[in-house]
Amino acid sequence: MTDFPASHQDLLDAQFASLATIGRDGFPQVTEIWFLHDAGELKLSLNTARLKTRNLQRDPHCSLFLLDLGVPYRYLEVRGNAKVEPDEDYAFAQKLGAKYDADLRVHDQPGESRVVVTIEPTNVYAVDMRGG
Amino acid sequence: MTDFPASHQDLLDAQFASLATIGRDGFPQVTEIWFLHDAGELKLSLNTARLKTRNLQRDPHCSLFLLDLGVPYRYLEVRGNAKVEPDEDYAFAQKLGAKYDADLRVHDQPGESRVVVTIEPTNVYAVDMRGG
Repeated sequence: MTDFPASHQDLLDAQFASLATIGRDGFPQVTEIWFLHDAGELKLSLNTARLKTRNLQRDPHCSLFLLDLGVPYRYLEVRGNAKVEPDEDYAFAQKLGAKYDADLRVHDQPGESRVVVTIEPTNVYAVDMRGG
Repeated sequence: MTDFPASHQDLLDAQFASLATIGRDGFPQVTEIWFLHDAGELKLSLNTARLKTRNLQRDPHCSLFLLDLGVPYRYLEVRGNAKVEPDEDYAFAQKLGAKYDADLRVHDQPGESRVVVTIEPTNVYAVDMRGG
């Protein structure tokens, strides 16, 4: 469990985050994703067919970027390693889906599967550039 | 000059973008930045004392992520190489500053300098997940 700064706690309950992974070609990849702040940890539910998931399975280095969409001078960047675990019964997908009142199964094709990705933070940066 | 998709042209004139670079430690770094769409190219004005600048000077692979802050299901990701050039007379900093009605010199300390970073795109992804 990570201590996230009190000043940016609201962003842990936001609807969207940007996830940066590193591709096989050496380029960072950024996508906008859903996430869940669950018992002190930041977790994602990813379809294993997606490039970002394959990136994390090959190279766990990642950054989860929680931007205040209303005040984009303010954000929380969480750099860390992705722990990727199977979610074959969609137990975590359902838990994350509840946050969004959504059924994640409808986004998946037959034969696709999901994993739970837990960010294990190595560095947390709370930024607020207003008034600087 | 890159052809950016017509569907996402508005994001080229947005106020904010997220820049992902790759750190010496192998982690992606993401920061929120100002940028300018200038004669068909995406350009940044960066202070050379900043970690993101040093990252780009060591490893030019980067991703510029233009998120629709009002509809965060919609974004343009531009992956490419950063061309880093000196801006000792602040000519480009002034041009970018005009977009924001800001003087970038006030953000710099004595002895610091600026560079112009031009993103040379290798892949452009226009995403709109609404209605999916």
